[in-house]
Amino acid sequence: MREVAVIGIGQTKIDEHWDQSLRDIAGEAVLAAMRDAQRDHADALYIGNMMSSTANRQQHLGAYIADWVGLKQSEAYRIESACSSGAAAFRTGLMAVASGEVESAVVVGVEKMTDSPGSEITAALATAADADWEVDQGVSFVALNALIMRRYMLEYGWKHEDFSQFSINAHANAISNPFARFHDTLTLERYNRGPMIADPINVYDASPIGDGSAAVLLVPSDAIISSGHPKVVVAGSGSATDTIAAHDRSDPIWLKAAERSVKSAYSQAGIGPMEIDLFEYHDAFTIMAALSLEASGFCERGKGPRAALDNEISITGRIPVASMGGLKARGHPVGATGMYQVVEVVQQLRGEAGTNQVADAKYGMTQNIGGSGSNIVTHIFKRA
Amino acid sequence: MREVAVIGIGQTKIDEHWDQSLRDIAGEAVLAAMRDAQRDHADALYIGNMMSSTANRQQHLGAYIADWVGLKQSEAYRIESACSSGAAAFRTGLMAVASGEVESAVVVGVEKMTDSPGSEITAALATAADADWEVDQGVSFVALNALIMRRYMLEYGWKHEDFSQFSINAHANAISNPFARFHDTLTLERYNRGPMIADPINVYDASPIGDGSAAVLLVPSDAIISSGHPKVVVAGSGSATDTIAAHDRSDPIWLKAAERSVKSAYSQAGIGPMEIDLFEYHDAFTIMAALSLEASGFCERGKGPRAALDNEISITGRIPVASMGGLKARGHPVGATGMYQVVEVVQQLRGEAGTNQVADAKYGMTQNIGGSGSNIVTHIFKRA
Repeated sequence: MREVAVIGIGQTKIDEHWDQSLRDIAGEAVLAAMRDAQRDHADALYIGNMMSSTANRQQHLGAYIADWVGLKQSEAYRIESACSSGAAAFRTGLMAVASGEVESAVVVGVEKMTDSPGSEITAALATAADADWEVDQGVSFVALNALIMRRYMLEYGWKHEDFSQFSINAHANAISNPFARFHDTLTLERYNRGPMIADPINVYDASPIGDGSAAVLLVPSDAIISSGHPKVVVAGSGSATDTIAAHDRSDPIWLKAAERSVKSAYSQAGIGPMEIDLFEYHDAFTIMAALSLEASGFCERGKGPRAALDNEISITGRIPVASMGGLKARGHPVGATGMYQVVEVVQQLRGEAGTNQVADAKYGMTQNIGGSGSNIVTHIFKRA
Repeated sequence: MREVAVIGIGQTKIDEHWDQSLRDIAGEAVLAAMRDAQRDHADALYIGNMMSSTANRQQHLGAYIADWVGLKQSEAYRIESACSSGAAAFRTGLMAVASGEVESAVVVGVEKMTDSPGSEITAALATAADADWEVDQGVSFVALNALIMRRYMLEYGWKHEDFSQFSINAHANAISNPFARFHDTLTLERYNRGPMIADPINVYDASPIGDGSAAVLLVPSDAIISSGHPKVVVAGSGSATDTIAAHDRSDPIWLKAAERSVKSAYSQAGIGPMEIDLFEYHDAFTIMAALSLEASGFCERGKGPRAALDNEISITGRIPVASMGGLKARGHPVGATGMYQVVEVVQQLRGEAGTNQVADAKYGMTQNIGGSGSNIVTHIFKRA
């Protein structure tokens, strides 16, 4: 298997883009990645997207976007695994280039959610859960996470306020990221006063949806690269599932799929959690932030909130997370999120993260979660 | 890139399966493929499906199906490229195994269409076309094909009846296929009396939708195989796009994406159309059958109907097509179709096609078309 490098990155601001269609947004990110790489061609285009069939009445995004961005005749198709669609698309691009089947691939994550009424988006998000045994019983996606959080708090004795630092840290990091949805400071007082959505999840435990797209260009790492950016290679990749229904798990407060996917990624990279300089995790809800830190080997079981309370997760901390704002404050356009994570890690490893730069970052990890922990994809990147 | 073998195949009958859910159907095909291969594990599961988000209110089919069939913790996600979703999923599985990222992969195509009203399915199929510039103008998917067929008839002087043999041949071949939707003989008289859907396409030019699933198990071809079936390997693979809107093509009666994808596949296999012993093409409409034969090198431009009229496409003809009934008579559960094609070619190359056996078949080709020719995936298989 040949090594693969990320040689171009592009992203759009996450916002309500009333003036742009799905293809406008995706095109902006793809063309930015091509410009960044100083290339005008790619053999293939892989698209991470969850809900265009309902939110945009458009499927077949492969031909739709390849055509729009001028990648005439390139191979192109869509990959979907709910909120982990972006990382699953990245993994497809990685395997395509690694196999030798293509010599270059653009991977783009895109979601255009804000044209639809909120109730439709809630229904679309619920398709990530089991239609028969979760959704038809009336459980929304945030309610599922609330059940998991409640159980976690009961098991380990954490209070709601103990989760605050995940969100406060994310908002602090988003302020200097021009692509982030939010640019406001979150205080503990404001966190505590947040309107409840599904007890114990209040609005500041949850990430905002939005419209956005992020893209990269992948080539074999021995290809000549002339863009002038430091080279970043994919050092490890892992992908695993768990039961789709949370209630089918013997241990619903442990991300078994994360544990398995990081194990593969660490093994390929030949490193462990100690070597990771930053971690773009999937903080769709504060409970997922805690569970992700634990299953990835950065904290002991049940100790996720401790790492946040002790400020270990800040840019200068032991394990910086959400370095550009994370899902909580950069925003969570679901099928695009996994690709934002990749773009941000590449910014960090290139030393192009501005005031949010993690000093001397060599290894960065991304982890994208689909469903209530049922599909988890982890990648490790390395400054070459 | 290491060579990949298909060591297990499974399929369900295409029908209106009121008594089975999406996962029941997919599970039946996946488990049949595992049994056929005498294996009980796979590292990964790739799913071709187009419309589960609307037809079944269920996305995230990766975790949903992996969980159901007992592939606990396997990597699993969905691939979508409209009606070519099945072949795109196959190509993903091929690249995954070829890259060395996984050692075994199940690929399954599945579609459960008949629980929804016809109008919803028509709307869902239309998401394969350009939402802004085709669908919003009122053009349904069959209407797009009718426009292409009309232009083709005008250009080359063919009459409607000249397309009859594509459908008559397909119905003849389906009779002995227990998995086919139709088991009735189509006569020329009946073809000519078919109710018109979108002039010049009548009901006998069009393939029927249905519920169905087909699956394979892929491993590196040097892996030990103990199932007793002859080994079939993937000899060539190609995938290409064209403009999503038919009206954007300078030559809308030529499948440029097919031409490009077969070129890649032939080149990898080191052969040309003369060596192909059977061709499972995408006869969603008779016009697509003609265009596919031409762009794949089996007929001259404009001569597709001639090959059918001269009986060259029958089991004993020069280039047997739709050997188990094709989309027209086996049926077209859209996201599953590409995988039915693969399963049928493997049946033929193994010598397990019963009364439909193509004598001494060594090379078989599949071609799956998404949209009005905008996404085309071709594979060549070889008896090892």
